[in-house]
Amino acid sequence: MPYVNIKITQEGATAGQKAELIAGVTDLLVKVLNKSPATTFVVIDEVAMEDWGVGGLPVEEYRAKLRAGNG
Amino acid sequence: MPYVNIKITQEGATAGQKAELIAGVTDLLVKVLNKSPATTFVVIDEVAMEDWGVGGLPVEEYRAKLRAGNG
Amino acid sequence: MPYVNIKITQEGATAGQKAELIAGVTDLLVKVLNKSPATTFVVIDEVAMEDWGVGGLPVEEYRAKLRAGNG
Amino acid sequence: MPYVNIKITQEGATAGQKAELIAGVTDLLVKVLNKSPATTFVVIDEVAMEDWGVGGLPVEEYRAKLRAGNG
Amino acid sequence: MPYVNIKITQEGATAGQKAELIAGVTDLLVKVLNKSPATTFVVIDEVAMEDWGVGGLPVEEYRAKLRAGNG
Amino acid sequence: MPYVNIKITQEGATAGQKAELIAGVTDLLVKVLNKSPATTFVVIDEVAMEDWGVGGLPVEEYRAKLRAGNG
Repeated sequence: MPYVNIKITQEGATAGQKAELIAGVTDLLVKVLNKSPATTFVVIDEVAMEDWGVGGLPVEEYRAKLRAGNG
Repeated sequence: MPYVNIKITQEGATAGQKAELIAGVTDLLVKVLNKSPATTFVVIDEVAMEDWGVGGLPVEEYRAKLRAGNG
Repeated sequence: MPYVNIKITQEGATAGQKAELIAGVTDLLVKVLNKSPATTFVVIDEVAMEDWGVGGLPVEEYRAKLRAGNG
Repeated sequence: MPYVNIKITQEGATAGQKAELIAGVTDLLVKVLNKSPATTFVVIDEVAMEDWGVGGLPVEEYRAKLRAGNG
Repeated sequence: MPYVNIKITQEGATAGQKAELIAGVTDLLVKVLNKSPATTFVVIDEVAMEDWGVGGLPVEEYRAKLRAGNG
Repeated sequence: MPYVNIKITQEGATAGQKAELIAGVTDLLVKVLNKSPATTFVVIDEVAMEDWGVGGLPVEEYRAKLRAGNG
């Protein structure tokens, strides 16, 4: 009975893409560990860009810095 | 000093119902483990229906499938 | 289909006490939100004392400080 | 830059199976959302059987009950 | 490659304050454990007041009770 | 009343280093958001190397690959 939590930045993932994630992760757990889909939960969290940090910066600033070649 | 996180699908839980969950979980931890309420945190997350998957499907599709007798 | 995560400090909770937490939280979700037990997951994490901080201190130091009347 | 947390009951998943989960989830996020593997984290938690509840019971009791036909 | 999740009550933290948290936590992990900023993720969750409980009460009621001297 | 969860790979962090993390994160929340230390929880999780993935690989393989210049 797995529980999977997927956190992604909020950048327009569609309901269809989320359904693909749910199906894909569940299939993976069936295939690798023989888990039952009926007791496999998947919870997706979309995180606002200002709430996600990497490299000590909010993610948009971090990406801008990488693009500017200072990464 | 327990920390409890309750994730539920977003289906109209009221502030009153959330207060009941907070009170109930806290009482339970006092009763079973003699924890102090003042250092017991409860955080409730309401998860959008399209962000919760079970049986490899978003929860609404899963419920529809169960109702249709294909579960 | 709720998911509940209970984090407690590792201080000897027994399997019986954990079973009481699982039963109690599940009953609460049935009573307050009419959730189905079969799709209610409860995951308990016991956290080593040195890994839990409060008041800026590991929990044992914090308790000692409170007992010493400096809290 | 996704973060994925997979919680499973502690029932002997091997390092090889965990590596398959890590590879599979990462591939899925690349395929569905075009995420970069280098900033995709996957964290697997194995949860002791007595710490996982479903149907208001620790998971082993729940399974025994299902097998006994009382589910 | 640390992952840090900061949950705070939703009380008007600004993007600038969040950036300070992201920078500060990342610096701390560099300083204490020599972690690489590029593989340090920080995710901030703002939790609605009615979704955060302490002392068995939603946080606003709890604070009101403390102010009233019944804490 | 913040709650902070820090996940790091299990590579020998000492109790002293954990205490530094607890103190540092708590100070940061006091300084940036004026939070009270007494209601600030910090929970540290050490994650076994085989349970942490990045770049689609368990972290040790990922690091070996980077060192080999194939990253």
